Amino acid sequence: MSGLLKLALCQMNPTVGDIGGNERKIIEGIDGALRAGAALVLFPELAITGYPPEDLLLKEHFLRDARDALERVAAKTRGVVALIGFPELADDVYNACAVLADGSVHGIYRKMLLPNYGVFDEHRYFQTGTQGALISVGDAIAGLTICEDIWEPGPPALDEALAGATVLVNISASPYHAGKGSERERMLVQRARDNLAAVVFCALVGGQDELVFDGHSLVIDHEGTVIARASQFEEELLVATIDPEGPRGVRLRDPRHRPAVRRARPDVSTIARIALPDGSIPADGASVGGPIAQLLEPSDEVYAALVLGLRDYVEKNRFGRVVLGLSGGVDSALVACIAVDALGPDRVCTVIMPSPYSSAETQADARLVAANLGVEAIELPIESAMRAYEQTLAELLRGRPPGITQENLQARIRGNLLMALSNEFGWLVLTTGNKSEMSVGYSTLYGDAAGGFAVIKDCSKTRVYELVRRRNATAAAPPVPTSIIDRPPSAELRLDQRDEDSLPPYPVLDPILDGYIEDDLGREQLIRRGFDPADVDRVIALVDRAEYKRRQAPPGIKISTKAFGRDRRVPITNRYGG
Amino acid sequence: MSGLLKLALCQMNPTVGDIGGNERKIIEGIDGALRAGAALVLFPELAITGYPPEDLLLKEHFLRDARDALERVAAKTRGVVALIGFPELADDVYNACAVLADGSVHGIYRKMLLPNYGVFDEHRYFQTGTQGALISVGDAIAGLTICEDIWEPGPPALDEALAGATVLVNISASPYHAGKGSERERMLVQRARDNLAAVVFCALVGGQDELVFDGHSLVIDHEGTVIARASQFEEELLVATIDPEGPRGVRLRDPRHRPAVRRARPDVSTIARIALPDGSIPADGASVGGPIAQLLEPSDEVYAALVLGLRDYVEKNRFGRVVLGLSGGVDSALVACIAVDALGPDRVCTVIMPSPYSSAETQADARLVAANLGVEAIELPIESAMRAYEQTLAELLRGRPPGITQENLQARIRGNLLMALSNEFGWLVLTTGNKSEMSVGYSTLYGDAAGGFAVIKDCSKTRVYELVRRRNATAAAPPVPTSIIDRPPSAELRLDQRDEDSLPPYPVLDPILDGYIEDDLGREQLIRRGFDPADVDRVIALVDRAEYKRRQAPPGIKISTKAFGRDRRVPITNRYGG
Repeated sequence: MSGLLKLALCQMNPTVGDIGGNERKIIEGIDGALRAGAALVLFPELAITGYPPEDLLLKEHFLRDARDALERVAAKTRGVVALIGFPELADDVYNACAVLADGSVHGIYRKMLLPNYGVFDEHRYFQTGTQGALISVGDAIAGLTICEDIWEPGPPALDEALAGATVLVNISASPYHAGKGSERERMLVQRARDNLAAVVFCALVGGQDELVFDGHSLVIDHEGTVIARASQFEEELLVATIDPEGPRGVRLRDPRHRPAVRRARPDVSTIARIALPDGSIPADGASVGGPIAQLLEPSDEVYAALVLGLRDYVEKNRFGRVVLGLSGGVDSALVACIAVDALGPDRVCTVIMPSPYSSAETQADARLVAANLGVEAIELPIESAMRAYEQTLAELLRGRPPGITQENLQARIRGNLLMALSNEFGWLVLTTGNKSEMSVGYSTLYGDAAGGFAVIKDCSKTRVYELVRRRNATAAAPPVPTSIIDRPPSAELRLDQRDEDSLPPYPVLDPILDGYIEDDLGREQLIRRGFDPADVDRVIALVDRAEYKRRQAPPGIKISTKAFGRDRRVPITNRYGG
Repeated sequence: MSGLLKLALCQMNPTVGDIGGNERKIIEGIDGALRAGAALVLFPELAITGYPPEDLLLKEHFLRDARDALERVAAKTRGVVALIGFPELADDVYNACAVLADGSVHGIYRKMLLPNYGVFDEHRYFQTGTQGALISVGDAIAGLTICEDIWEPGPPALDEALAGATVLVNISASPYHAGKGSERERMLVQRARDNLAAVVFCALVGGQDELVFDGHSLVIDHEGTVIARASQFEEELLVATIDPEGPRGVRLRDPRHRPAVRRARPDVSTIARIALPDGSIPADGASVGGPIAQLLEPSDEVYAALVLGLRDYVEKNRFGRVVLGLSGGVDSALVACIAVDALGPDRVCTVIMPSPYSSAETQADARLVAANLGVEAIELPIESAMRAYEQTLAELLRGRPPGITQENLQARIRGNLLMALSNEFGWLVLTTGNKSEMSVGYSTLYGDAAGGFAVIKDCSKTRVYELVRRRNATAAAPPVPTSIIDRPPSAELRLDQRDEDSLPPYPVLDPILDGYIEDDLGREQLIRRGFDPADVDRVIALVDRAEYKRRQAPPGIKISTKAFGRDRRVPITNRYGG
């Protein structure tokens, strides 16, 4: 029982499958921890492979490559203990945390609570661990947990605390949704108090296809006070000092302080005992804690998630530049802002594609957005392609009134032009549809829905306005003209068209969508919430009917509790209404 | 111990979410069983809701609606015992089998082995049952199992047999892949022998999005002899008589005959005891067994799966008609044959869309396929749309050699024209790409890949030829001209183009794809199989790079052990090569 412990939490941004690159980042983290004089350095869940590696985990050679990288990393752990997430191939496959020290692997903890809901498929890949794990590092006793393990108040964390752990370590890859960081922090604070243990939470950061990991690593003392916090959405080596003895003292002193649940036989084993070299323990006078990053405002947090999600999709897939259509509407204006903030104006190209139904005002606004953001704007009118299709189809459509067919052709011509630029120059096409449109199918498959990445597909129209207003408010020169924000939304695919011709107004639509999609409410429950029955029936029918479109939509960034994609798995063939 | 038992296996085709419609089908099955004088009638796994209902299972009101339907069905069970799959909402949600008799629910068995691999996500929805279940029906004792439960040699089937069951019932929804029916039959024969019990296997039939269920219900006696078999790919009420006493006699007589594994305490409870009304037991002189359907030849089996998968997608989603482009190539010819066999020629419309690169021979062949099949053929030349795009993009592309951009535009114009017909007339667009092309990305996103259903997306080019040859060989008048089969494959997007300009020849490509995709082999393992290292590297790179295209592909019918879609979940952002 002698003194403090200095830790380094390597909040890193790995790339899925890039085992060599992740290994280099981990070794840099170990070097940083050594330079900082930390005794223990933590890396996130599956840091070696990136998270989630999905069906790469079904390849035995992938698992062997990951293990080889782990052994090479272990060789670098002279003078520091490292905890690193990796997929362990043993009698089965486990989501594991390796304890590395003195150049070798000392022990392995296997995740016990495997999430298999929402975006998670961990039962597809992993066998369940059966036992909590303690490690002693010098005089400190730490219990190991991986992500989901600590979301439950019971074992393994409880068992580890009952078996003597005064520090609970959690290595994590926890996908973001709006407000998740604060929710997670509250949970971890509670877990520290439940167990009278310090909580050391090392999180993954970065974008991976539809997921963003928000970082926000934490060190919490035994009384539930946050004593160090890493930034959201950025890589960081968070160095902090803890007093591992604190809780034990408190526990002995104060009878109120004991774990709420008692268990006869905590199921835990000690998997590693590591002596600390002289000089690695801070003097008793050293101060406890570390840097505490400010939390972002709610809108800024979502915006930062979108920026990081887009940047990582572009960089990790090695695109040089992105291209998007600017319509003069609010959605494409927001996507242009996000793209510029993610990549810089030189890597963003915008295309303005007027038709005879495009108003002078929206076209002028589109040009203004491009100018305000300093991005290239190409103009490609679509009228001659419209005429060519009309002529090709003239005989077939003779005598039939123009309608959705002609409207969709306009959207598809624009999609084709953007894809032509993508094919010719290798640019990634960004789509600009929002979640309200995706929900009710108010988009053209292969038209405005065509592209490689759908940046705001999980943002409702309501949220789009909120984000644009905030982006304008925090800029020296607001990039989005107020006329874009004030004008009633229109797809401009026919004369005087407005979204409200086809859909309930967004302030009515969006709350029904929230209830139906995110809360899985049925018709009757929605009506009990006070929505108009006719609106409810109309919205449910639209959402269900549009599933086939969503199935072919590009991936985009999850920022809600239930995003379209891996998060919501509904049949296309489905006669259940609601 | 008195006599025989007459059973009815209702191999039904439910529609996911259509609880009312499924209820009506079940009641028809009960009526049929009563008319046939059966004492016991079986329905497939989740027959009430259809399988798989996916995230509908997260809606509490959906589960309550399913329960209400079950209670209404129970009221119809006067004079017959019914076993029916349904999702049970209790302390948690279970994949359950209800025992209905005398107008009420007598007991419920909960599935113990929940598959969570391949296309399955059952841990996402269901809690695990903990105990085998016996029912006594008259003097017979039957053990209940649901689908996956019986694929393992151990419990619950083993426990139920040890506890006295001489009949093992399995209600199932087992997705098809080529050869699966025979594989499953061998497994069930083995299970009958393992446990000295008759096996009664009642299977779902029908298409549901990417899955086809092949039916092939079975009754197997205690010595492993198939004594009744329902048709593959068709609804059927299979009526058969078994001798439930057989195995017990055998077991007592012959010491070799006993379950291979002994367990001290089989974990089983008896959940229902139902007396049989007088006259429901066949006389001792009645013969054992029932009709035994012939199994289809391997190619016919795959073809039948494609026909059923397409027909059910069209019918269950209430499309009147389908439309597809005919190129004069083998893929679209095959899809046209399947569509006509599924829906009849009047519900199939073909479109021939020549460009300046289309040869007279392929166009003539396309017209011949349409004529042979008796389907409408619309001709829509694409040259004027090509010129319009060229002109629109002229300034941007000035001085750059034509290439992939121009080729993709042709494919996208064709996609747009088919989608215009879909928008105007409400037809479902069928895409015609095969699995070899999908694997290596040899297709144009939003072009030939545009459509609502990708009929042959899981058929390699090799299999496409096999199916076309077989379709020709079994027809009085072969629908596909031999010139289509003999001509080297070409996308005809530039002069004298051939697939082999861009890809290894299909006889080289397809076996590498099988190894990489279906067997999850890595580079080294493929090379050890004897493939050329340069081919292997090229194919792996192509497959990995095309993941973003596959993510936006329409659903299509799984006929292999690993289809693209829910069966193979790989990240787009992925730097692991191989």
